[in-house]
Amino acid sequence: MSSIHEECGVFGVYSPKRSGLAELVYHGLYALQHRGQEGCGIAVCDDGVIIAHKDVGLVGEVFDKRTLDEMPDCCMALGHVRYSTTGGNDRRNCQPIVVNHQKGRMAIAHNGNLSNAGELRTKLELTGAIFHTTSDTETIAYIITKQRLQTDSIEQAVLGTMGIIDGAYSLIVMSPTKLIAVRDPYGFRPLCFGRLPDGGYAIASESCALTAIGAEFVRDVEPGEMLVFSKDGVASHRCDLIRPRRTCVFEYIYFARPDSVIDGVSVHKARLKAGHILAQKCPADADIVIGVPDSGLDAALGFSQGSGIPYGIGLIKNKYIARTFISPSQDSRVDKVRIKLAAVSATVKDKRVVLVDDSIVRGTTGGRIVAILREAGAKEIHFRVSAPMFLHPCYYGTDIDSEDGLIACRHTAEEIAAQMGADSLGFLPVEDVGQLARGIGCCKACFNGDYPTSIPTGSTKDKYEMKLSKRRS
Amino acid sequence: MSSIHEECGVFGVYSPKRSGLAELVYHGLYALQHRGQEGCGIAVCDDGVIIAHKDVGLVGEVFDKRTLDEMPDCCMALGHVRYSTTGGNDRRNCQPIVVNHQKGRMAIAHNGNLSNAGELRTKLELTGAIFHTTSDTETIAYIITKQRLQTDSIEQAVLGTMGIIDGAYSLIVMSPTKLIAVRDPYGFRPLCFGRLPDGGYAIASESCALTAIGAEFVRDVEPGEMLVFSKDGVASHRCDLIRPRRTCVFEYIYFARPDSVIDGVSVHKARLKAGHILAQKCPADADIVIGVPDSGLDAALGFSQGSGIPYGIGLIKNKYIARTFISPSQDSRVDKVRIKLAAVSATVKDKRVVLVDDSIVRGTTGGRIVAILREAGAKEIHFRVSAPMFLHPCYYGTDIDSEDGLIACRHTAEEIAAQMGADSLGFLPVEDVGQLARGIGCCKACFNGDYPTSIPTGSTKDKYEMKLSKRRS
Amino acid sequence: MSSIHEECGVFGVYSPKRSGLAELVYHGLYALQHRGQEGCGIAVCDDGVIIAHKDVGLVGEVFDKRTLDEMPDCCMALGHVRYSTTGGNDRRNCQPIVVNHQKGRMAIAHNGNLSNAGELRTKLELTGAIFHTTSDTETIAYIITKQRLQTDSIEQAVLGTMGIIDGAYSLIVMSPTKLIAVRDPYGFRPLCFGRLPDGGYAIASESCALTAIGAEFVRDVEPGEMLVFSKDGVASHRCDLIRPRRTCVFEYIYFARPDSVIDGVSVHKARLKAGHILAQKCPADADIVIGVPDSGLDAALGFSQGSGIPYGIGLIKNKYIARTFISPSQDSRVDKVRIKLAAVSATVKDKRVVLVDDSIVRGTTGGRIVAILREAGAKEIHFRVSAPMFLHPCYYGTDIDSEDGLIACRHTAEEIAAQMGADSLGFLPVEDVGQLARGIGCCKACFNGDYPTSIPTGSTKDKYEMKLSKRRS
Amino acid sequence: MSSIHEECGVFGVYSPKRSGLAELVYHGLYALQHRGQEGCGIAVCDDGVIIAHKDVGLVGEVFDKRTLDEMPDCCMALGHVRYSTTGGNDRRNCQPIVVNHQKGRMAIAHNGNLSNAGELRTKLELTGAIFHTTSDTETIAYIITKQRLQTDSIEQAVLGTMGIIDGAYSLIVMSPTKLIAVRDPYGFRPLCFGRLPDGGYAIASESCALTAIGAEFVRDVEPGEMLVFSKDGVASHRCDLIRPRRTCVFEYIYFARPDSVIDGVSVHKARLKAGHILAQKCPADADIVIGVPDSGLDAALGFSQGSGIPYGIGLIKNKYIARTFISPSQDSRVDKVRIKLAAVSATVKDKRVVLVDDSIVRGTTGGRIVAILREAGAKEIHFRVSAPMFLHPCYYGTDIDSEDGLIACRHTAEEIAAQMGADSLGFLPVEDVGQLARGIGCCKACFNGDYPTSIPTGSTKDKYEMKLSKRRS
Repeated sequence: MSSIHEECGVFGVYSPKRSGLAELVYHGLYALQHRGQEGCGIAVCDDGVIIAHKDVGLVGEVFDKRTLDEMPDCCMALGHVRYSTTGGNDRRNCQPIVVNHQKGRMAIAHNGNLSNAGELRTKLELTGAIFHTTSDTETIAYIITKQRLQTDSIEQAVLGTMGIIDGAYSLIVMSPTKLIAVRDPYGFRPLCFGRLPDGGYAIASESCALTAIGAEFVRDVEPGEMLVFSKDGVASHRCDLIRPRRTCVFEYIYFARPDSVIDGVSVHKARLKAGHILAQKCPADADIVIGVPDSGLDAALGFSQGSGIPYGIGLIKNKYIARTFISPSQDSRVDKVRIKLAAVSATVKDKRVVLVDDSIVRGTTGGRIVAILREAGAKEIHFRVSAPMFLHPCYYGTDIDSEDGLIACRHTAEEIAAQMGADSLGFLPVEDVGQLARGIGCCKACFNGDYPTSIPTGSTKDKYEMKLSKRRS
Repeated sequence: MSSIHEECGVFGVYSPKRSGLAELVYHGLYALQHRGQEGCGIAVCDDGVIIAHKDVGLVGEVFDKRTLDEMPDCCMALGHVRYSTTGGNDRRNCQPIVVNHQKGRMAIAHNGNLSNAGELRTKLELTGAIFHTTSDTETIAYIITKQRLQTDSIEQAVLGTMGIIDGAYSLIVMSPTKLIAVRDPYGFRPLCFGRLPDGGYAIASESCALTAIGAEFVRDVEPGEMLVFSKDGVASHRCDLIRPRRTCVFEYIYFARPDSVIDGVSVHKARLKAGHILAQKCPADADIVIGVPDSGLDAALGFSQGSGIPYGIGLIKNKYIARTFISPSQDSRVDKVRIKLAAVSATVKDKRVVLVDDSIVRGTTGGRIVAILREAGAKEIHFRVSAPMFLHPCYYGTDIDSEDGLIACRHTAEEIAAQMGADSLGFLPVEDVGQLARGIGCCKACFNGDYPTSIPTGSTKDKYEMKLSKRRS
Repeated sequence: MSSIHEECGVFGVYSPKRSGLAELVYHGLYALQHRGQEGCGIAVCDDGVIIAHKDVGLVGEVFDKRTLDEMPDCCMALGHVRYSTTGGNDRRNCQPIVVNHQKGRMAIAHNGNLSNAGELRTKLELTGAIFHTTSDTETIAYIITKQRLQTDSIEQAVLGTMGIIDGAYSLIVMSPTKLIAVRDPYGFRPLCFGRLPDGGYAIASESCALTAIGAEFVRDVEPGEMLVFSKDGVASHRCDLIRPRRTCVFEYIYFARPDSVIDGVSVHKARLKAGHILAQKCPADADIVIGVPDSGLDAALGFSQGSGIPYGIGLIKNKYIARTFISPSQDSRVDKVRIKLAAVSATVKDKRVVLVDDSIVRGTTGGRIVAILREAGAKEIHFRVSAPMFLHPCYYGTDIDSEDGLIACRHTAEEIAAQMGADSLGFLPVEDVGQLARGIGCCKACFNGDYPTSIPTGSTKDKYEMKLSKRRS
Repeated sequence: MSSIHEECGVFGVYSPKRSGLAELVYHGLYALQHRGQEGCGIAVCDDGVIIAHKDVGLVGEVFDKRTLDEMPDCCMALGHVRYSTTGGNDRRNCQPIVVNHQKGRMAIAHNGNLSNAGELRTKLELTGAIFHTTSDTETIAYIITKQRLQTDSIEQAVLGTMGIIDGAYSLIVMSPTKLIAVRDPYGFRPLCFGRLPDGGYAIASESCALTAIGAEFVRDVEPGEMLVFSKDGVASHRCDLIRPRRTCVFEYIYFARPDSVIDGVSVHKARLKAGHILAQKCPADADIVIGVPDSGLDAALGFSQGSGIPYGIGLIKNKYIARTFISPSQDSRVDKVRIKLAAVSATVKDKRVVLVDDSIVRGTTGGRIVAILREAGAKEIHFRVSAPMFLHPCYYGTDIDSEDGLIACRHTAEEIAAQMGADSLGFLPVEDVGQLARGIGCCKACFNGDYPTSIPTGSTKDKYEMKLSKRRS
């Protein structure tokens, strides 16, 4: 079995007001769509009966009015957006997964990646377990089920599970009567909750989803914490494991939405900060600073503020490119990047340009952007990247699978600049990355190889390039 | 968990010629579509990797050219058509189910219903098993998996499973290297196999599917037999259990296609025979004999032959009514039965008519047909049914769930005739039903309550009426 | 412009009860679906505003609940089913066509084919007319519009149009306040009307559609008659042209549904009669008579009655083959005809078989059926065709385009029999075809070349074979 | 007939290299998608045969790989994106329209609106013309057709048509052998052309579409100019009418893409300029300037530059909201604007904010944005609009239909500010709007009522609000 790595988003609501909960999750998932565009699903729990709908596609593709209307009134609902392997046949890997076990039905939505998933799965298989999916989530479901048979409550079962599974997990579990939110002891992936205007609660991967549905942010779920929402209100529990906080720094650099606040730090501010540091550590003598939309804009503004070089709007993104876009055929004269990004000649013509983006993976797209800017008249192009060089695979739910595809593993910054046609290239120094979210312990393993947990052996990682470039599209 | 009952069809091919196998299964399923119209699926095994596509809908709806073309070349393929509960969310109950277990992947397609499914499921759940579906097939997959861990081969595991599961099952199992066909020791559901023109084998629920794809019929799979198709050819094994043959008599009366031959008996001939018996045991003084298309035509012809009363074409079925048909709205002046069936006035006007159908469930549709014939000028209508009265639920894969919906449980033939407006009504006598397939031991439990196996306790049966009437549509 | 030929169906309702009219037309079109499966449409007139929905596809594909529900309440509605050239781009040729002209909106649905369409179109083009479609219907719309500018009412305009257009036309025209039904002076295509239970009227190509929606048949529209339905009730007008009645005999032989009655003659009876004549004129020494379903069954029964040879059910048609069916690929071992038609071995084995079908076009399908019956064990096969040999193209709305594709134009019956592998072959003698609808003047031009109207010059006809074989599928 | 107003985009290619032209138009339309999201179409001309595909929906929805692949090789192709009335039934109004006339087939794509359309249509109707659509384009097709009958060439016909039709029109006409581009004598709507890398030509509403497909911009089509592309290359003609240039100023303010250059003026620069003027004429004492994405960002940057107040990223737009988005239900607690736009608290908290948007129509959305910023902690909000107040309907292809919906017609800036909850509100002074595109004569009729042409009488305009607000979504 080849390992599956995913970056996802989860969303749940518990509300005494029983109507419109599926719709509320639908809108919450819309605000988390940037965390996963390949599949999604919603499960509702109506008096112990769990009903789910999920499929590959965006939230707006998978759900239509009829699908939502057919979901019954309920006091709990749960949703998931997913980024992972593609293909019509992968519908079965969509979440939430819903299973029946000895104590009833259970739905689970998971963001993260277990580092001991393979080992746990093998153990389960040796007891006769069968797996319908290739995702870690099913392994978690099995372990909760086994724990449940040995304990008196779903809460105890989930706490017990936290002692067995290792790695990154921000989970929402829905039992017939309770909604349970769990964040792993390192806190790799974000998770927070808020209060609904009329009394219930919402749980979300990012605070932007709470704001979107009008919920009031209460606080982040703590690493190692389990929250139980039920008719008795909300109760907080802790697992026994004490671990250092290791929030994924790439959430700040790339994944999260700039209006979200994760573990007390504004994502937008973290990106501005990255721009400021770049301006200081990798300065450029230039006339204008522009960002690659959308994810490079914040750091570009930070660079402008830090350097005093004026900020400009130099690239326009075609916002209509969607899943259905048909790429130019092999023998076409048309370049795909040109259709997606256009230079604003009025901004860059005869200018020395600082171009800010959030990452360089293979360098191909960056090279095309440099070419487009040159055609639009840019005199010099100084490429600045608001992240350090990627040098190591990630085992915690980010799709950086293999060192093979990482240009930074094989080339120096100078070589990459030459290959892309840029006049200079600068990365955020890895020693400064901690400043983005000052005071929070961050996981920077993909930059420095310092993994907080033991790591899986023998896993192959090779799908990185294809996917991260696709994610950009 | 509410019990699920289904009538389904299975089809498999094993062929050294590696191309076009998914297409072959597609065409085989088309010939079995009458056995299940609610969902279908195909799984192919390409060098140990099993790839499946399945969904709710007819074969022609679920598969398009692209879906078929994307299925890789392979030496084994497996398909299933399914009749069961409806609804978009029930995609997960479609078959073949594909699971990963300790020894690799496995695909299973199942026609039938276990009588000890509930009991087995409870046992599994107590060991921590989780279920994604509500079908018996997942239970069978678990048991094969558990057996496989204790035995040396998939063959032994399947044989071991036959000693544990009870009831009706015609199964096809696909392991990474073998295709295995199994029929339960009673032989409730049909299963046969044939030879492909270029060397491989095909397995099908009914012989009509072998003929459709140009395979040569070899023989029925024997009750209690397991056939293993592999690169070493075909091998026959037997499970230890010896049971009397109990082929479902309703296969002859209603389910199977008239051009199929099951356990050596032609379905068309069995239906003609039913008509002959009816003519003898429930004669009518009439001018013309007509059948309700399509399933009543064979018995009507038999009645005509047996009675000497001329055969006529008296009812026309609208062949365009499909899943998408929108029934007349509540306040519409239009009657749904009228749109589906029309009387040929030229045939029935001023005539005494014998009307032959294969079953009466609630009597409503029959009453509407009688009315339509009267409007078309029929003077007398003598309703004859080519099956005995349904009096007992079926636990072997037929969707006769409950005695509540069965008109024959609550009314005499005279009362039913009066209710339908027929001048007389006659059923095939239960003591004669054995003649339809002379020499074969048949299960007639739905008529006489004589169940070959122990039956489940506490199962609720209530969805009968809705479904059988729908099946007619 | 290549000429377009079509066989279609029309349906209209005028009712003071304003609700559910679109639904009524929907159900009426379902009963006419056999007249055209390539496209359909419905137009409703709500207080002068005409709203239409139409597309390629079957009635059940083009209309869903939402589409029907969105059609406003109205007192008039109009529908059309169409058989013609295929392809997604031909949506624009679907009917009813809706046009705006100087006096308001107008919707038209047309069954038939003008013999002077090309000439009229050229004249219109020389005045600056532009055409969006390639169908005759648009030409008719232009002529009505021009007439309307010169007359005081839509009735006068339509009557005036009848003096200009020539050929086959059964039309329904919907003006802002009136529904008008017109049948050409020869009466090539059928058209009849009936009374709705609650006071309004329905117009249909065939009586079966009136019965389907519960309307009471009143009478056929007379050749050359125009009926006007309005708030003042129904008024009958006549155009000045007096022509001999020339109902298309192929309506009786093939097109119409057997439960329809056209111009006083039952279609089923006409087909039985064809079988009787065949039994007398082309007898065979045989054991059993079988028909090719569905359209050969009536004549087969007639042959059996006429000859005394028993009637049997020898071929089963797969009723699930629909538009989405994927034909076996070129290199597949599967034969398409086998999937569509299966022999009932129990009926034909060791028998001398009379096989009755309604037509032979190219002879290919017939040859495959003969082969299938031989494999099923038939000893002799005597092919009988319930129509005379096609020898001439049709210009009146039947898709017999070209003599090139007609096997009967190039071969004798003996040659065709040999080619198909049949032991003998007999056609309905052309001199007897008049007996099918005794007392009615029929058009038999496709058999004897005796065209009631002048015929177009220079028209190319070549799409016949492809289409008629497809129509069979 | 109610008048239809549209803002659209056109794209055409003429290339000796015959392959991939439909795909080229597809990619060109993607770059023009912002000009119309309700429908689109492509027509190709293959040796005199014109084949088209069009439907309601975005380019990526209407065209899939199969549709494009089915379009034949050709040397000319033509496309259109459309913004107009909604609804499934409006498929017939999609463009290009394709008509047959006496001289052959013709396809037309049109951006603009005729001011004498009603008058021309009435005249045509009085000669018997019928109309299938409600768009001006069909009227233009009729007039070209009539001209063509009186002249020797399509060029003369089109030039003659320019003397008859009045108002805004940027047209592309495809005859069997020529591709013709026309811009009305005022030049209301943009139109330009470029050279393809391998020899052909492309015509586009905006230069951004030329850049997208790798064509080299040649120049704008001049007002009153007709360009004819054929195998003889490109020829320029002029119509007789001399009119002052009246490029629509709202193209600069709102419609066009910022990377386009229209009539020599960069759209991005025009918007920066608007911001500069606003900073000067409607200054504010503030800490930060933010724009409403996407269309308010350029002017916000201009305001920042003009005022010296720092530029910030204060609002994030959810880029996944598409046509399929289900708005919160009536009784939901969720606010639609919140899901589409989110405030970046880190940017606006405790700040005095200048908020720049490009227009205010009804004021509702603006009020919601103000509220969202307040909740995010903004101390003061100074709303600045980079356009003057709308006071007059547009008759030239912009969907400003009615004065009823225009808040500025009924309220002062102070009243609107109060209604929206803003601390101050400033519009671009109408006397300064000319500076946006200095040196070009612009149409500012929607601001000052100074219409370049005579205007239609009796037209009702009332759909404005619904549509412009929708366009923003």
